[in-house]
Amino acid sequence: MKVLILNGVNLNMTGIREKGFYGSLTLDEINEKIKTECEKKGIECDFYQSNHEGDIVDKLHEARTAYDGVVLNAGAFTHYSYAIHDAISACEIPVVEVHMSNVHKREEFRHKSVLSDVCKGVIAGFGYKSYILGAEALLND
Amino acid sequence: MKVLILNGVNLNMTGIREKGFYGSLTLDEINEKIKTECEKKGIECDFYQSNHEGDIVDKLHEARTAYDGVVLNAGAFTHYSYAIHDAISACEIPVVEVHMSNVHKREEFRHKSVLSDVCKGVIAGFGYKSYILGAEALLND
Amino acid sequence: MKVLILNGVNLNMTGIREKGFYGSLTLDEINEKIKTECEKKGIECDFYQSNHEGDIVDKLHEARTAYDGVVLNAGAFTHYSYAIHDAISACEIPVVEVHMSNVHKREEFRHKSVLSDVCKGVIAGFGYKSYILGAEALLND
Amino acid sequence: MKVLILNGVNLNMTGIREKGFYGSLTLDEINEKIKTECEKKGIECDFYQSNHEGDIVDKLHEARTAYDGVVLNAGAFTHYSYAIHDAISACEIPVVEVHMSNVHKREEFRHKSVLSDVCKGVIAGFGYKSYILGAEALLND
Amino acid sequence: MKVLILNGVNLNMTGIREKGFYGSLTLDEINEKIKTECEKKGIECDFYQSNHEGDIVDKLHEARTAYDGVVLNAGAFTHYSYAIHDAISACEIPVVEVHMSNVHKREEFRHKSVLSDVCKGVIAGFGYKSYILGAEALLND
Amino acid sequence: MKVLILNGVNLNMTGIREKGFYGSLTLDEINEKIKTECEKKGIECDFYQSNHEGDIVDKLHEARTAYDGVVLNAGAFTHYSYAIHDAISACEIPVVEVHMSNVHKREEFRHKSVLSDVCKGVIAGFGYKSYILGAEALLND
Amino acid sequence: MKVLILNGVNLNMTGIREKGFYGSLTLDEINEKIKTECEKKGIECDFYQSNHEGDIVDKLHEARTAYDGVVLNAGAFTHYSYAIHDAISACEIPVVEVHMSNVHKREEFRHKSVLSDVCKGVIAGFGYKSYILGAEALLND
Amino acid sequence: MKVLILNGVNLNMTGIREKGFYGSLTLDEINEKIKTECEKKGIECDFYQSNHEGDIVDKLHEARTAYDGVVLNAGAFTHYSYAIHDAISACEIPVVEVHMSNVHKREEFRHKSVLSDVCKGVIAGFGYKSYILGAEALLND
Amino acid sequence: MKVLILNGVNLNMTGIREKGFYGSLTLDEINEKIKTECEKKGIECDFYQSNHEGDIVDKLHEARTAYDGVVLNAGAFTHYSYAIHDAISACEIPVVEVHMSNVHKREEFRHKSVLSDVCKGVIAGFGYKSYILGAEALLND
Amino acid sequence: MKVLILNGVNLNMTGIREKGFYGSLTLDEINEKIKTECEKKGIECDFYQSNHEGDIVDKLHEARTAYDGVVLNAGAFTHYSYAIHDAISACEIPVVEVHMSNVHKREEFRHKSVLSDVCKGVIAGFGYKSYILGAEALLND
Amino acid sequence: MKVLILNGVNLNMTGIREKGFYGSLTLDEINEKIKTECEKKGIECDFYQSNHEGDIVDKLHEARTAYDGVVLNAGAFTHYSYAIHDAISACEIPVVEVHMSNVHKREEFRHKSVLSDVCKGVIAGFGYKSYILGAEALLND
Amino acid sequence: MKVLILNGVNLNMTGIREKGFYGSLTLDEINEKIKTECEKKGIECDFYQSNHEGDIVDKLHEARTAYDGVVLNAGAFTHYSYAIHDAISACEIPVVEVHMSNVHKREEFRHKSVLSDVCKGVIAGFGYKSYILGAEALLND
Repeated sequence: MKVLILNGVNLNMTGIREKGFYGSLTLDEINEKIKTECEKKGIECDFYQSNHEGDIVDKLHEARTAYDGVVLNAGAFTHYSYAIHDAISACEIPVVEVHMSNVHKREEFRHKSVLSDVCKGVIAGFGYKSYILGAEALLND
Repeated sequence: MKVLILNGVNLNMTGIREKGFYGSLTLDEINEKIKTECEKKGIECDFYQSNHEGDIVDKLHEARTAYDGVVLNAGAFTHYSYAIHDAISACEIPVVEVHMSNVHKREEFRHKSVLSDVCKGVIAGFGYKSYILGAEALLND
Repeated sequence: MKVLILNGVNLNMTGIREKGFYGSLTLDEINEKIKTECEKKGIECDFYQSNHEGDIVDKLHEARTAYDGVVLNAGAFTHYSYAIHDAISACEIPVVEVHMSNVHKREEFRHKSVLSDVCKGVIAGFGYKSYILGAEALLND
Repeated sequence: MKVLILNGVNLNMTGIREKGFYGSLTLDEINEKIKTECEKKGIECDFYQSNHEGDIVDKLHEARTAYDGVVLNAGAFTHYSYAIHDAISACEIPVVEVHMSNVHKREEFRHKSVLSDVCKGVIAGFGYKSYILGAEALLND
Repeated sequence: MKVLILNGVNLNMTGIREKGFYGSLTLDEINEKIKTECEKKGIECDFYQSNHEGDIVDKLHEARTAYDGVVLNAGAFTHYSYAIHDAISACEIPVVEVHMSNVHKREEFRHKSVLSDVCKGVIAGFGYKSYILGAEALLND
Repeated sequence: MKVLILNGVNLNMTGIREKGFYGSLTLDEINEKIKTECEKKGIECDFYQSNHEGDIVDKLHEARTAYDGVVLNAGAFTHYSYAIHDAISACEIPVVEVHMSNVHKREEFRHKSVLSDVCKGVIAGFGYKSYILGAEALLND
Repeated sequence: MKVLILNGVNLNMTGIREKGFYGSLTLDEINEKIKTECEKKGIECDFYQSNHEGDIVDKLHEARTAYDGVVLNAGAFTHYSYAIHDAISACEIPVVEVHMSNVHKREEFRHKSVLSDVCKGVIAGFGYKSYILGAEALLND
Repeated sequence: MKVLILNGVNLNMTGIREKGFYGSLTLDEINEKIKTECEKKGIECDFYQSNHEGDIVDKLHEARTAYDGVVLNAGAFTHYSYAIHDAISACEIPVVEVHMSNVHKREEFRHKSVLSDVCKGVIAGFGYKSYILGAEALLND
Repeated sequence: MKVLILNGVNLNMTGIREKGFYGSLTLDEINEKIKTECEKKGIECDFYQSNHEGDIVDKLHEARTAYDGVVLNAGAFTHYSYAIHDAISACEIPVVEVHMSNVHKREEFRHKSVLSDVCKGVIAGFGYKSYILGAEALLND
Repeated sequence: MKVLILNGVNLNMTGIREKGFYGSLTLDEINEKIKTECEKKGIECDFYQSNHEGDIVDKLHEARTAYDGVVLNAGAFTHYSYAIHDAISACEIPVVEVHMSNVHKREEFRHKSVLSDVCKGVIAGFGYKSYILGAEALLND
Repeated sequence: MKVLILNGVNLNMTGIREKGFYGSLTLDEINEKIKTECEKKGIECDFYQSNHEGDIVDKLHEARTAYDGVVLNAGAFTHYSYAIHDAISACEIPVVEVHMSNVHKREEFRHKSVLSDVCKGVIAGFGYKSYILGAEALLND
Repeated sequence: MKVLILNGVNLNMTGIREKGFYGSLTLDEINEKIKTECEKKGIECDFYQSNHEGDIVDKLHEARTAYDGVVLNAGAFTHYSYAIHDAISACEIPVVEVHMSNVHKREEFRHKSVLSDVCKGVIAGFGYKSYILGAEALLND
């Protein structure tokens, strides 16, 4: 099984900014951990991050034929990008929406995701473990 | 590690009603699966279900000293029970909110959880696997 | 044909409190009248009342295989109990929502029922006759 | 006892359009059934239908001295015609609001009636039987 | 100066229904009083009433070349008829919106007029004197 | 009959600022015209203006025993001063709310008056004539 | 192919009132242009206009069997007439909603159409050409 | 004078959880203090607490004939239990709503009480003293 | 202990206007009662009332160093005066918000206080006793 | 006449995803059809598509001097991109907003366009024909 | 150039209360700094502060002919005083709205200014420097 | 001190489009003026503009270690880009939000900034001078 770990805007700053919310591991360190855990479960992972909404859309289009599923942390795009919403619909493979922090404990605007209704499911609040749980959730599909 | 799998209102009807949303396994069959998977990971599980909001509150109070964490599917109580919200705050151990269906694909009233902000995190959309992922999410705490 | 007349919260106070809205007959006297009228039409009635939301849920689950239909006056639960909403969906037999008073002439909060969309239909405003009309409405199903 | 069965906009299309909601009987066939059932109960019925809001208002003004009660299915006027709302107030005899379909299962705009607060009561969801129950509800007034 | 006193829906019932709000004079008696008072001030009045929104629209179109101004009590149409709103714009002569009762003391829906922004001004709360004040307000234009 | 013409905030600037809305007469010139017209109708007028909400409240308290009625243009206080709202209730003589401009053609915030429901009636849109019509409206009370 | 060009309230005033929005052609002149252009494309047109909502409803009912499609400019009815909404559903042939002005540049209330969801499509902003484009849009159905 | 001190959901956890809001006294210790203070003023107190909404309703029904008044801290039920709202109406003796914390300094959902309009009055923010002031407030009724 | 009893707008009319809400005692008579009761409890009271928001603000600033606490009935200022809100924050001594009537039984606008979140607590509904309970609530701080 | 056919986010997936809404033609096939039809009418077309909002903005800036008009299907950007809104204002040539599907039959978020008020007009619901009608609508400008 | 530095409600408490938001300089010390900085730039400053809304209005009226511009920190009046809004319109010289704190980081009610749309511009968040920047912003007008 | 002057979407069109709002200077001419003024005050400025949201995010990430502060005019991104909101939080140096026009005098959507709460402060309405004031506001930090 082949899964794309797809990170959106500002996630390249993880481990650098706001460590209270996201922990002190950098994105590379997190990806390393995800890779290790996923391999144990027979999941092959690729990683991609961009601060450009259009890149996330393009990548989801590509994922359609290249992966069995996507674990998507869209960052702040989660709360307004109907473009990504439609790209998820278009990619036709299961997409799991993940967040490292529990978005419901934070600012009002983070309580609403415009992506959830087209995702397979949602996982939020478990730090970098959210990605691993997300990949695992795809496993039996 | 000892975890309480706590199910709220109408979940005793799982596998009987609305199989499109919840699958055809009964709650007992689901619990059996959770038990097996959790034991593999060194998690000991207890199970409790009630259609009475007050029972869920009482059980959360008890859980405070009896368990290391709770995996809670409150059913429809999720959307209005501030009583359970406060009981989660009061129980002081990590509580993971889970849902079998992806609540964001369903009626408007299911999009709002009044419990999420006091839970450790949220997992929704993976059928009975949501419980197992929820238990796993508690593992490293 | 066998029908459950199911009364929710505070309806045990009918005929005692707020007679302007509910008339001066007690619930027992009302039930007696319903029984008499229904028997004339070949409808056998059982009666149940509780102030506990969980009891109403439990009773609806039981009704699933024990009755041909339910006439439900949920009292104030009507306006917020998504638990009862889901129990109606789960019970799979026709449920008629009834109210003795015309709820639309009263406080704002009574104008919204969270139950109506899963009921067969709604009858409100005809005093104890609402129950009889509700039973009759089930007759030809 | 003399009752006016008053039908508003588009109800002349019953049995022709959208049979899923309204059944396959035409308005004339429905009226015939109502007549028969009402006569059994000693209720004399007149019938009137118009697609013109002003005609419904005029008819309610006339009903004031000509009938003992009105069974009103205002169709889509139900949701915005404050003109009919005021005409019901003005006619001073009891008016029962009826709908063949359960309006709460349908589009959002059908969930709000601007007429209910000046009607004696509301009956919805029982097909053509809604009219008969409505007439019966007027019987003992 | 020639003025049209234009009355909308249900105003033919004035003096018959709801005397608490509108007084006990009938529309004809009111018109007689308006005529007398207006003649004293050199205003010639015509009178028209209809329960049909379309008639009010047609009359406003005619008024465009036949009168110097209109005193309009649209009744309940005031609160939703954008058709009359546009007809007032189209008629190009000054229109004064009047109400016999103080609409702000009554139901919520009467607090909003969709006509006021295209009228010259608004007068409400002075019983039949509202019409006379309205005609007088047109006098110096 | 003795009437208080009571002007609120910024009305001392009439004829100086924003002549498009209020005309080019100063408040003194307007008062002169009101005085003349009212005397013809047997109404004795006093005049008071203040930019201080508390002064308007004090004056309404005094008016209670000193006048037969009040014509009140509260200026911008109209839209938020519940203090003046309660003072109108307390003064127990009829108060007519007037505005020179048609407030419904202007900014959104001017469409809502918090005073209207405790006034006898409302007159808006007729320039300084609004005051004269307001006094006249009090005449027969 | 036979198409009904159906005009609602106040459109008889086109070319007379508010030329900024609607141009200076009268409705007859516009209809002449539509006829000529449509004939070129093999579309036969009939024309109907009324200021009465009920007439528009009646005409849509007739259109059901008499035309292949309808080009509907309902005027202000667009924004509140659920009666016309239901008549469009009932007529079962494709209806194209058209507006001469771009309604989105105008008052807030014109931004919401209650008809669009039951129409085949919407065309707005191209003056009398909106009708011709609307007829053309029906051509290939 | 005999008063019921009635505590709702989660109040059994007082002194155990969230001491910042509720202080470090347990409910038993608080009740002891209330008892002592009330006896000084000639008020006899009974105490009842439940996490079950239905129990609170039942107790209010009993209170109707057994007490002169109720001091009610409904906990989180305060914010959604229309069942308790109606039970307060039904019990016909004065009920004082109390809160230990100042609910207006806390989460948005705690700012709205659905009980206040049927209570005699409200007291919030004074820790366990809120109960004593509540009992005192009942004294002279 | 020294406490300021601070009364806002229209409270000088107590006992004169709207006796249904406020009782028939004048403010002076009420103050006399408060003084007597407070002295018994060792509380020295000063009294101040103004209809001017600015005076209430000035007095709160002074209170900062002159009193141990304030019992504030701001009248209608309660519902919109963010100026008083900020003055309460600035005065740094405990302020208790009191109302004689139960504001939650009255008009919608009285349900929202903009002051409560910066006050120590709130007491409403006990007539002049609200002031005495408010002073007592300050006693142990 | 030279027109830019400008397609936004996800429109490269047309004919691949969600064929129920968009038909089975690919974007290239659609463009071919548009080209052919437009040439017949003397309209020269260029085509551009991007999933990057910034590219759409850049292209609109270029269009300002390079084209006589733009036919814009912004895809999901339609519903939130105020950036494109301002770019349309800035480009100063007429822009026609088009949609292949009737957006009003779909999810709530698609009912609101943030672009319409700065476009010349809107066309929605006619599949690939929407583009051709859009180009035609530009023809006479 | 002559500028009025105008301070509204509670700003006399600056440096005394809530130093976290406003710093520890008193208003006099701040004014001294503003004076010094402004003189360097050739701006002559006068200073005025009041806790009375009416005084701010009066001062703005006077400013009309006495100053070249106003730097206004209205304090909490910013959020509801339409009286001051209209006084700014009336004074006809440029008014710059300033705040020492960044109001958008604070309570919800401070996010909305009712003054901004009639001011020349807005400056917020730079402590006492906000006044100096505000004066400078007036310089070139 | 080194400051980045960062311009978002459509600001490359300044001086070309909509000169009423933004003046007739091009962005290059404005930058020249900013440079000159800032140098006088010892501020070194760099300049960057992009129509791509992702570029603005990337630049803010870079700014974190390369500049002492940022003056940001995000253009229309201001009103919906939570991506930029989070990038401002992440960059940890002070960011001043500036606008050339007074956004509060313009369309409703421009009244809400999603960036302000994470900026140091806001300056709007002073044309190109807004940038210079913004740089100056950073000076003493």
